[in-house]
Order: sequence, then C-alpha cells, then structure tokens
Amino acid sequence: MRFNTVGLMGKPAHQGTNISLNALIVYLKEKGCRILVDEKVAANLPDGDFEPKEVHEIGAEADLVIVVGGDGNMLGAARILAQFDVAVVGVNRGNLGFLTDINPEDFDVQLDSIFNGEYQTEQRFLLEVDVYREHQLKSSNAAVNEVVLHHSKVAHMMEFEVFIDDKFVYSQRSDGLIVATPTGSTAYSLSGGGPILTPNLDALTLVPMFPHTLSSRPLVVDANSVVKIVVSADNAENLQVSCDSHIVLTVMPGDEIHIRKNHNRLSLIHPNNYNYFNVLRKKLHWGSKLF
Amino acid sequence: MRFNTVGLMGKPAHQGTNISLNALIVYLKEKGCRILVDEKVAANLPDGDFEPKEVHEIGAEADLVIVVGGDGNMLGAARILAQFDVAVVGVNRGNLGFLTDINPEDFDVQLDSIFNGEYQTEQRFLLEVDVYREHQLKSSNAAVNEVVLHHSKVAHMMEFEVFIDDKFVYSQRSDGLIVATPTGSTAYSLSGGGPILTPNLDALTLVPMFPHTLSSRPLVVDANSVVKIVVSADNAENLQVSCDSHIVLTVMPGDEIHIRKNHNRLSLIHPNNYNYFNVLRKKLHWGSKLF
Amino acid sequence: MRFNTVGLMGKPAHQGTNISLNALIVYLKEKGCRILVDEKVAANLPDGDFEPKEVHEIGAEADLVIVVGGDGNMLGAARILAQFDVAVVGVNRGNLGFLTDINPEDFDVQLDSIFNGEYQTEQRFLLEVDVYREHQLKSSNAAVNEVVLHHSKVAHMMEFEVFIDDKFVYSQRSDGLIVATPTGSTAYSLSGGGPILTPNLDALTLVPMFPHTLSSRPLVVDANSVVKIVVSADNAENLQVSCDSHIVLTVMPGDEIHIRKNHNRLSLIHPNNYNYFNVLRKKLHWGSKLF
Amino acid sequence: MRFNTVGLMGKPAHQGTNISLNALIVYLKEKGCRILVDEKVAANLPDGDFEPKEVHEIGAEADLVIVVGGDGNMLGAARILAQFDVAVVGVNRGNLGFLTDINPEDFDVQLDSIFNGEYQTEQRFLLEVDVYREHQLKSSNAAVNEVVLHHSKVAHMMEFEVFIDDKFVYSQRSDGLIVATPTGSTAYSLSGGGPILTPNLDALTLVPMFPHTLSSRPLVVDANSVVKIVVSADNAENLQVSCDSHIVLTVMPGDEIHIRKNHNRLSLIHPNNYNYFNVLRKKLHWGSKLF
Repeated sequence: MRFNTVGLMGKPAHQGTNISLNALIVYLKEKGCRILVDEKVAANLPDGDFEPKEVHEIGAEADLVIVVGGDGNMLGAARILAQFDVAVVGVNRGNLGFLTDINPEDFDVQLDSIFNGEYQTEQRFLLEVDVYREHQLKSSNAAVNEVVLHHSKVAHMMEFEVFIDDKFVYSQRSDGLIVATPTGSTAYSLSGGGPILTPNLDALTLVPMFPHTLSSRPLVVDANSVVKIVVSADNAENLQVSCDSHIVLTVMPGDEIHIRKNHNRLSLIHPNNYNYFNVLRKKLHWGSKLF
Repeated sequence: MRFNTVGLMGKPAHQGTNISLNALIVYLKEKGCRILVDEKVAANLPDGDFEPKEVHEIGAEADLVIVVGGDGNMLGAARILAQFDVAVVGVNRGNLGFLTDINPEDFDVQLDSIFNGEYQTEQRFLLEVDVYREHQLKSSNAAVNEVVLHHSKVAHMMEFEVFIDDKFVYSQRSDGLIVATPTGSTAYSLSGGGPILTPNLDALTLVPMFPHTLSSRPLVVDANSVVKIVVSADNAENLQVSCDSHIVLTVMPGDEIHIRKNHNRLSLIHPNNYNYFNVLRKKLHWGSKLF
Repeated sequence: MRFNTVGLMGKPAHQGTNISLNALIVYLKEKGCRILVDEKVAANLPDGDFEPKEVHEIGAEADLVIVVGGDGNMLGAARILAQFDVAVVGVNRGNLGFLTDINPEDFDVQLDSIFNGEYQTEQRFLLEVDVYREHQLKSSNAAVNEVVLHHSKVAHMMEFEVFIDDKFVYSQRSDGLIVATPTGSTAYSLSGGGPILTPNLDALTLVPMFPHTLSSRPLVVDANSVVKIVVSADNAENLQVSCDSHIVLTVMPGDEIHIRKNHNRLSLIHPNNYNYFNVLRKKLHWGSKLF
Repeated sequence: MRFNTVGLMGKPAHQGTNISLNALIVYLKEKGCRILVDEKVAANLPDGDFEPKEVHEIGAEADLVIVVGGDGNMLGAARILAQFDVAVVGVNRGNLGFLTDINPEDFDVQLDSIFNGEYQTEQRFLLEVDVYREHQLKSSNAAVNEVVLHHSKVAHMMEFEVFIDDKFVYSQRSDGLIVATPTGSTAYSLSGGGPILTPNLDALTLVPMFPHTLSSRPLVVDANSVVKIVVSADNAENLQVSCDSHIVLTVMPGDEIHIRKNHNRLSLIHPNNYNYFNVLRKKLHWGSKLF
C-alpha cells in the first residue's frame, strides 16, 4: 500500500507537537504526499503546502493519519478515525505511550520504513454503549479504552445486575463497573486491579470498582458477547456512563446499558520492530532480559 | 447423537460415589446401554451387568462417560478422556463443582434430558507442557487447569524469562508462575489473584506467584500463543513444573519450558439449563438477582 | 457503673426500629431509668413515659445511649456522642453489623447482663480533618470510619503529596486517598483493598484509590501520626474531602489537609460474649471452626 | 554514647564487602577503637589490627556492630545480635536495602556523624515461634521479618485454625500463612499482598497465601497479641514453619504454633538524615516530590 494522502493531527497548542508537525510537513512534501492538517492544529502552524481540514474529512480522504501527542490525543483521534478505512500511526510527544510509538527524534527513519511497506497493522476494536430507558434507546456512544458505569458522586455505592449474552452473572453493590477493551486494559482498568489483555485478544474485561462483596474478581469474556447492565430502580438518580473518561451519558435508575463490540476498527500501524511488551515493561518497571 | 456405550468412573472407595454408581448401572441398564466401569471403582461394586475396563479402553469404546465425584475426579478423568472422541458429564459427589453439575438426587431427570438430546456441549481445551534441556525434549505432560512453574521449596524465589510467541515479555523474580486455562481460571490461579476467564474464551492467563516486582499483573493472552519460560541458569537446582497439582516434572537451571494448547479437547456436556455463572455466584457468594 | 439515664436513638421512620424502641421504653421503665428519646424518632412513637430531646442533650445527660438500626445509624450517632462521656450500645436492625451487636429478638437478656455490669467497653478513636488554604484553617470535621480525599468527579485523576509527621512519603496520581481508622478498616477501605485492623489497634491505614503507580500499597501508620496531604496546585478545582461518606468539605488546588486522631473517643459497649471476629467471619464468609 | 569496641560482620567471600571491611578497619583504627571481626569474614582479610571473634562474642563485647552487605546479611546478624545490648548499623553492599543504609562510597562521613552522636536509634522487635505437639514444646526459633507456616510442597493446600489472644478468628484452607513484623512487611509479606507497616508500629500482619476463600484479607493486629495456629489433624504430614526463609521447623498435623513478640530488640541506628520512606519510594517507584 502506498500512502498518498496523509493527515496530520495532534495535541493543540503544544510546542513539541508543533515542532514535529512542521517537520512532518517538510518530510511528507518531499515524499510527494498530499497533506491534510486538522484545522484545530493548523491555525498554530506557519503557512505551508497543506490543506486545513475538519477531522471527519481527514478520515474520509487520507490513506494514513499521523497523530502527534500522547495516548490521550490518539484516543480522541481514534474515536473518529475508526469510522473510516484509514491507517493511523502515532508520534509520541507525551509520556511513554502505548499507542504513540514513533520517536520524534528520528521519526524520518521510522516513517521511511513504513512508507516502504515495512510495518505491522493492528486492528483495535472499539466498544459501543447504548443506554435504554423503558426499552427506548436514549443515548449511545463509542469507546476505545473503556466504558465505566458509576455514580456521579465518588464513594457512593450503586446497585446493578450484570448479564452476559442474557445469562445472569451477578448483582453487585459497588462504586461502579469498568468494561475495558484490550487497548483499555492498560489504562483505568489496570489501576482498578484488572488484568492486562494483549492487544490481539478478542476479549473484554469487567472490573468491579470498590465492590461490597470482597470475592468479586475481574472477569474476562469473549468480545463478541453482549454485556447488559440493569441498574436497580432503587438507586438514587445521579448515575453516569463514561466513555474513555471523556464522553458522559446520563443513566437513570431502572435503565439498561448494553455494551458490545463496535463494528468499527482502528487500524493502528507500527514499525516492524515494535514489541508491545517493551512499552509495558518500561511503564511497569518489569524485569528486563537476564542473559 | 445416541449414547449406546456408557462408561462410569468415580472417586474410588467413596460411599456416596458408590451409591450413585449403582443407581447409574440400574438406570443405564434400563436404557439398554452397554456399561463399562473403571476397574478402579468396579472392585467396590456388587457384581452386575457391566464390564470392568481400564480407563483408556473406556475412552476408546464409550460414547459417553459419566464421572461421579468432585472436580478433582473429573480433572483426573479429563486428562485421559480428552485423548478420545467421547462426551463426558459429571455427577457431583464433592463440594459444589464447576465440572460436575448433575445433582445425584435427581440424576435420572437430568440424564433423561441428555439422552433425549437436550444438552449443550462445551469443548474445553488442555495445555501441553514440554521441558527442554539444551534443546532436547526431556519431559512432557498435559494439564486441564494449569501448569505451574515453581521452586520445590515454598517461599524460595526463582528467576526466569517469559516469551510469548518468541517476543520477550519480562524477566521475573518470584516464587513461580501459573499458566491457566479458562477451566483452571477458577482454581489455583484465582487464589493467586488471577482473573476469571469464561469457559468459551480462547485465552490463557499468566499469574505471577509472590512476585518481587509489585507492579506485576496477571496477563491474558491468546490461547494459540506459545508461552516459553527460560529458567535462569543461576537458580538453585530444585525447580518443578506441576500439571493440575498432580503430575510433577523436574526442571533444571537453564531449562526451557514450552506451554501451548494441546490438540485434544474435553467434550463436556451439560443439561440445557446449565449456567456457568450460577456455580460461580454460589462459590464466590456473589449477589443474586435483585428483582 | 449504674446506667440511670438512658438515651434512645435510631433509624428514623423504620418499622423494625420503632418496634424495638417501644420495647426498649417498656424495658427501661421497668428498670426505673429516666428515658431520653432522640426527637427525630420520638415523633413516630406513641406517647409514653419518655422525654424527647435533641441529640446533644442526650449526649450530655445520658449514662448510656442505645442506638437501634444499622452501622450507618451508629456512625451518625457516634460522631456526636463521642464528644460526651457516655457509653453507647447498638441494637441491630440493619444488615449484620460491626457496631450494632445486640440482637433485637432477645435484647432484654443481653441488656440485663449489661445492666448487671457484665460487659466490655471498647474505646474507638475518631479522626479529625482540617483543610488549610494558604495557612488558614478553612474547614474542619470528624470521622469515625474514614476520611477520603477525592475528585468531585468519578474516575478523574488527581495529584497530591503525602507526609507522615512531616516526613515526605510519596506523591501520587490517583482517584484519591482513603485514610481509615480500625473501625473504618472493615468499611470503604476494605472494598478498596485495605487491610483489616483490629479495633484495639492504635493505627491508621492509608489506601490509594485507583493509583496510577501499580506498586502503590496500603500503608499502616501509628494513629498518633499526623497525615498531611498537599494537593497539587495543578489539579482542576473540584476536589473534596468526605468524612464517613456523609460530610463533604471543599478542597481547592494547593490546599493542605491535616488528618490526626481526634481527642474524642466513642465508648462502645458489648456483651461479654462478644467476639469481633465472629462478625467478620460471617460477613466475609471466612471458614468456621474445624474441630 | 561513645562506641569504643566495634564489631564488623559481612557477606562472606564477597569482593565489595571485603573492600569495605578493610577500609572500615583503617577508619576505626584511626578512631582508636578496639575492632572485633566475625571469624567467618576475617579469614579473607589481610592480617591487621583486629581480633577475629565468633558472632556471639562480638554481640557480648561490642558497643556497635557494623554489618556490610545486603538486607539478607543484616537479617542473619540481627537474629543473633538482638540477644545483646549492642547498636547495629548497615553498610550497603547489596541491592538498595531497607536495613543497610550507609553508602559504602562515603561511609566515613556518615560514620563520623554517628560517632559524634548524630544518629537515631530504632528498636525493631523480633518474633518468637514455638511449635507444640500434644502440649509439649517441640521446637522454637526467632524471626526478624516473618514466620511462615506452609506445606513442604508448593501449591498444596493445608487447613488450619487461627486464634488471636485465644479468640477464634477463622479456619482457612490455603497454601499457608505469613505472620510478619513491620520490618518484614516490606519483604515476603508484601509480595503476598500484605500492607506496609511503618517500622515504629507495634503491630503484626497476618497474610494468607493463596487462600481458598477469596474474601480472605490481610489482618493487622497488636504486636502484643499471641497468634495461635492450630494445624488440622487431617493435613498430610509434610508441613513447615520457616523463620526469615532460613530456619525451618517441622510441623505435624495437629500441632499448635504460637507466635508472639520476642523480648529481644534489634537496636538499629541510622544517620540523622535517614527517611524510611525514601527507600520505600525508590524500591517501589513511588512518585517523588512535585514542587
């Protein structure tokens, strides 16, 4: 595959990001690419040979999108770009990132390889969450990392039932429930005691938050399952579902929440020498090679 | 499918088991089945219209094997029966069991349904573990629940490297490592802090035992991965791999241990009303339905 | 000690509680006691030989206060009664309680023993929390179970430094921090992974909530320590300190929170056959005696 | 206090340790001290102005003992030296240590301060464990870090009852039980999920190993309690109690194990700038100061 039209996105108003974006414009121009730049970052760049575009337009027209920033920026981009058939790669301008693995220092060497076809493509699936009230769909959204059901107040218990593919699993009193993808298994879910799912695994993890029953444990289920959460009608009113800690949907007592795999996929590309476990090991201070 | 030849196995020298085995012989005789009884339990039964057989013969000749006892008895039977194309069902004579879900009180009602074809079949995969010393295979075995690498002495640290599909994951100093199947995820792995994997999940979990690095976390990987553990040459000599806490293989410093899915499957059958989560909920005192 | 003046408090507008309160009035009248009833529950009781009083008056005048309800009602009562020199005992009308150990069915037998002097007294300490802004005390409160610093929004990270007796311990990015007494160690702190501290222990536990650093662990410190939390000035504005999940204090970026033992004590009395571990064992489904 | 007679101990046959020991001999000679050297390390040192001694003699005669090595060496020394009235300080020649906080690079600066009286003394208590068989004391030992009851085989369940001050706590099926001091709370107990107890805390922690009941939690009790463990008579024979992973006592089914505070104390001295939490923070990669 040849990447002819390349989109650029990034952390807005961030100096390091702007430096990388400028360098990328020069680099891509030399390659003869058509360059589309997210209008939110284009404003801060000197005029040049690129077209400012809205993100959905970039998704529709680009063959490749380069996202400059941290994992948070990639998450925001991914939620939109997954709707399109476009490859995405990240240049890291944040902390050590799981999703942004190109080093800004020598991005040209790594992009050269990618333009030469030396890369691996990972399909990362997203979740779709639907909130039903009396059998009517009230709201809907998507998540790359996780969907979290929780109280709108911290440290307030709620009560709900969980079903997997319509089989009753448990009722729970807790602060809430995290449903995470493999991508999200190294994010909030991990802080809550969830396991790490390798990115290629077709599975979800359900992690209880401060459960009242101490024998509650993280559950890992097939990603093709439908997770249904029925919120007890006895709860106080202020409940929420949040997607990737960004989007918040209102949940009322008695509501049903359905979480399932979204049909969209994020096509994340990595240089051929990429090893998922290297990042994990550095982040978590795991032991390096002995011999 | 019609079950014409039925094998019977069970907990040896256990009164409740013998009562159930006798009742089963009467029941199966009425159905017109040919009955094969594991010679280890046959000796304790009154003479009757059945053939005492060695377990491998039962596996080869029976269409259905009924195992009477607890999960431990089922595990022992499963390790052998998985080598054959035979359906297996458990009658519970131990504690509440994950694998033995027929109630001995009304086994006939439940077996009637099964003989009428009203049942679900679950394929449970096994693990195969191979120990290599200087590139030579030294020993090999299979596990239904889990393979555990550990010191032969409790509370003694060992050091090893883990690779998934030849990608380096981490080196670890710990008391050992548990590699569990979904079936085993509710057994020893769970006591060690591992997640629960639903039985249909094609995944393994790697759970560190008393890891020196406190940010070590359970890892869930695709069951088609090869897990390679390289034991540091610096370890003291006494290391072991155990399969389902029964079989013990000797491991020497410098050895490589390869763990992968075994090509055998256990065909476990359940009455149609079986719900895996019911057992889990009772075992773990999880909350029951609210409404 | 002879209990001449007895206060009665309880869960308001709760049928079972009212039944017990009425029975207690009859019982105490027979003993010749002066009876003070919390005015919030007195309104729902038939007229009788008792004096409706505000809780602070009860604390000041009574020798013994009997609280009818669950642990939540006892907590509310305890926060006030700890300011006075008065013995407190609980009659359980909620779920199995840690603090309310008199069974309503045969309360008379158990109270007879207590009136005969056959009881044990436990001193449970409280925490005091002070919020300082630019070295000025802005607000202050007390907690029986725990003080929790957290975001006002769920699943939002905050950043803060912790000092014990002015020694720097760590900085942390997390959803917040729980500082619990032994009494609170079986409540919210336990759901968050904290250890159980026996009631007689003069210690506090600090339990991180969803910490970003995975090697964060519960810390147990001397209860005579001063725990100082300095909230980073970089946090968003909406932070909170909550006491026993009831009282909420506002915290601004840059604020300092001081948590120390309150000089008040709750004098909780128990029948002589009381065993703290019995309640724990039942609540947590721990194993009972083997022999 | 003036340290006139100084003992030297260390990791045997370890080059770095020997370099430090030689330098210490020169340093102490200049101070005019009488120097006693553990005969196990003296053999590897060039002749000099010191007296080779057995460790008990060093304990009896020295005012100060300097232990060169890692925490393991300090543990071994501490078990003996705690029987004597002698101050102990560690020079670190292992990994980052909790007990050996003098840096070998500039040990003279730090020892100068100590000889000038600028130091803090910490009293670390030890545990005593007694194994009773049919009410007869069979064996006894002491531990600085922890006493562990466990199977002699890894991953084999055992069954026992625990009593605190003769109050029944729970029965448990598990791989064993760790009873740790504050000193030991950062060692094996921590790997097993136990809390960190600050060194000045007069408390013990009981940490279950791979408990069958998933709601088992670490328990923190007053260090003046007697922990009694009654091993079920139904266990298989091979059980053990180990002290600091070094001493192993045999335990038979039906035995009683009593664990209590030993009357000996280790007098550990630290330079005045010592902060326990600095070591903890480095070991556990906890966050450093923000401002």
